[in-house]
Amino acid sequence: MGKYHGQATTVLRPRTTQQVSDIVKFCASRRIGIVPQCGNTGLVGGSISLQKEIVLSLGAMNSVRSFDPVSGVLAADAGCILESLSDYIARYNHIMPLDLGAKGSCQIGGNISTNAGGLRFLRYGSLHGTVLGLEVVLPDGTVLDQLSTLRKDNTGYDLKQLFIGAEGTLGVITGVSILTPPAPRASNNILLALPHFKNVLPLFQTVKRQLGEILSAFEYIDRTAYDMGLEHGLGPILNPDEVGDAQCFVLAETSGGNHDHDSEKLNNLLESLMSADEPLIYTGTLSQSPGQFASLWALREGLTECLQKEGKPYKYDLSVPLAEFQNVVDAVRARLISKGLYGDHGITKVMGYGHVGDGNLHLNAIAKHGYRPELEAALEPFIYELVASHKGSVSAEHGIGSMKTSALRYSKNDVSIEWMRKIKHVFDPLNIMNPGKVLPSV
Amino acid sequence: MGKYHGQATTVLRPRTTQQVSDIVKFCASRRIGIVPQCGNTGLVGGSISLQKEIVLSLGAMNSVRSFDPVSGVLAADAGCILESLSDYIARYNHIMPLDLGAKGSCQIGGNISTNAGGLRFLRYGSLHGTVLGLEVVLPDGTVLDQLSTLRKDNTGYDLKQLFIGAEGTLGVITGVSILTPPAPRASNNILLALPHFKNVLPLFQTVKRQLGEILSAFEYIDRTAYDMGLEHGLGPILNPDEVGDAQCFVLAETSGGNHDHDSEKLNNLLESLMSADEPLIYTGTLSQSPGQFASLWALREGLTECLQKEGKPYKYDLSVPLAEFQNVVDAVRARLISKGLYGDHGITKVMGYGHVGDGNLHLNAIAKHGYRPELEAALEPFIYELVASHKGSVSAEHGIGSMKTSALRYSKNDVSIEWMRKIKHVFDPLNIMNPGKVLPSV
Repeated sequence: MGKYHGQATTVLRPRTTQQVSDIVKFCASRRIGIVPQCGNTGLVGGSISLQKEIVLSLGAMNSVRSFDPVSGVLAADAGCILESLSDYIARYNHIMPLDLGAKGSCQIGGNISTNAGGLRFLRYGSLHGTVLGLEVVLPDGTVLDQLSTLRKDNTGYDLKQLFIGAEGTLGVITGVSILTPPAPRASNNILLALPHFKNVLPLFQTVKRQLGEILSAFEYIDRTAYDMGLEHGLGPILNPDEVGDAQCFVLAETSGGNHDHDSEKLNNLLESLMSADEPLIYTGTLSQSPGQFASLWALREGLTECLQKEGKPYKYDLSVPLAEFQNVVDAVRARLISKGLYGDHGITKVMGYGHVGDGNLHLNAIAKHGYRPELEAALEPFIYELVASHKGSVSAEHGIGSMKTSALRYSKNDVSIEWMRKIKHVFDPLNIMNPGKVLPSV
Repeated sequence: MGKYHGQATTVLRPRTTQQVSDIVKFCASRRIGIVPQCGNTGLVGGSISLQKEIVLSLGAMNSVRSFDPVSGVLAADAGCILESLSDYIARYNHIMPLDLGAKGSCQIGGNISTNAGGLRFLRYGSLHGTVLGLEVVLPDGTVLDQLSTLRKDNTGYDLKQLFIGAEGTLGVITGVSILTPPAPRASNNILLALPHFKNVLPLFQTVKRQLGEILSAFEYIDRTAYDMGLEHGLGPILNPDEVGDAQCFVLAETSGGNHDHDSEKLNNLLESLMSADEPLIYTGTLSQSPGQFASLWALREGLTECLQKEGKPYKYDLSVPLAEFQNVVDAVRARLISKGLYGDHGITKVMGYGHVGDGNLHLNAIAKHGYRPELEAALEPFIYELVASHKGSVSAEHGIGSMKTSALRYSKNDVSIEWMRKIKHVFDPLNIMNPGKVLPSV
């Protein structure tokens, strides 16, 4: 987004955990700040050297350490690229429990440091559940070896959990072990057009009930986002006449072990949805080929790129109750209208899409002619206060980094922030580890 | 097991979080030790007052706070009995993500404090993934409110994770929010007899591949345990002629959304297993009725009770690599034989059963005529050293409590234990919160 410019004069690329430890010890002895960096694909300025701290790149630590095809446990260096790991275990018919757009360049240590969510979260859950072990170089250079490959280990405090989502402020993750699920043998998806937003929740319940354990994604796209996608060539997939004045769309995916069983479940679902007395949907389509499967996903995944083409996007990655998804988007648009900032001269589009199944809304406001302070002032802290009023999260999956430190208090109370500071101080009393990130300066 | 006798003269039963906070503040001001206690069903002496600390019972805090049937998120007081919560959400077609034998008396706050595993772990994963929020009274009486009901929230350190599995040594869990999965609409199980232990791993891979997402349990029972079960009336389920000299047994369960689909998958599995050129199994049976389903599980779940009838059991709850399950059991038996302690005068039976799918072996040695120091001396630290040599865990799911503090070092290195102590000291500098548990005394 062109928001940050790294100031580092030095980048170090260690090849071993011992080298990381030596670097950190050296920096600690001279109070030199360190910014751990993996793929540098984060969206909140978390891996940028803002005060000339050295950059500690993990990219040269990129070996798989072990993989057990029976248990599915993978151990790897932190600098392994997510897609490389996916490819590595694909030969054993396993998949990574997380997937995201940046997979071609993001690295597993960074994924874990930011507690990445992504597209498989609904099915395979949080990294707090799938990460089995970590090797971390602490801010004094000590190596904390908790690189267990055990699924169950109740021997004392689960310290590794602290580093998942700490964005490199408590130590440098150098090695990871993670549980990988068997690859599904069949994948299908459907795209549905809904007359009203209020149908989304009953639809989600129906889909969960009918598809059960094979449901692997349930993505929401509002009308503004859908139309934008169409304008940029991502469709049409559904017949425009049948779509009519549909207010929103849902993309659901299944991943299962038997193609015939899964298709039958999906066909039954679609049939029961279409033939209901008061249908929840206007229309829908079930992908019939790998090509169609890909183009349904392309609609959803292509939205980010469309945003960039439309102008400069203000991006908000929020958790709010499912029922409030559209209200939040509408409230932001209404706010901009009331401030006279909605239109070609200000924000041209406000839209929402995201992971309904996870309660995660991506809210985007497009500034056609670029970022401007008065636009930001209209959006913030308004959006953060709105999210706080719903007890939501101002950062569902992107993290805090340097961008959102001042917004932290909208999602975390004073006691929580005070205890984060205490934890930070115990691990990093010299404040050399990714300083200025996550916690607001006092 | 008759191993511990509580020494408390005072039990307090607060009804609100505020009362818990007041009690803890009072105790902190006078340095009075506190043992938080939920259902008191733990197996390692973690909720016993050993030094006349007061017992802080959460049992009177037993209300459901909220349940959202769309997202499946349940919020409840820590003192809610696990089975009551299961019953409560059953009406919304949801199930708790954990299930264990003690469900009728264990309480959710204790489950989370001990990071309980149990029978649904293979399918629904660790509490570190399913617990979304906690309300905790810290050792100075401060209420740490992280009772989020959001699935995704990447705003700073995930402090609540520290209390999952801390066994009440860092604070008192008073409220929890947890993600509950939709109830499966069909459940099936099969019991298989295997000629050799070495077939278990290829069988596990085959079953995982063929059953995929509907596999919900894969339990191992060795021949000694199976025969003991039969002697105590838990069978026979399989034809003894067909079982022959089978060395071990596997109970696999499926939970899915469509009974016909699931049965077809199971039948195909059984057929392919029976008709293979070099079959992995001697024989097997697929339950044909709810009654049969229950009796297959009764064989596995009844083993614990049989142990008690046979004598005094030395129980070890271990994580070891799947391939080592039987080696570990055999090594322990061989050790006892070599020490002349195997037989009616000492240990009569050594057996293993447990959750292959989780790498969790329950190893049991029965002392027919009761516990004796020389028996314990033959078993420990031998078993702990054996587990450590396989980089396993000396407590997979039961925790450390007061029983295993001296065994902690077999599964956690010095750096890890040192950091546990630092974390303990930050939260509980006066050492009033469940003192003497988890961490070995210095």
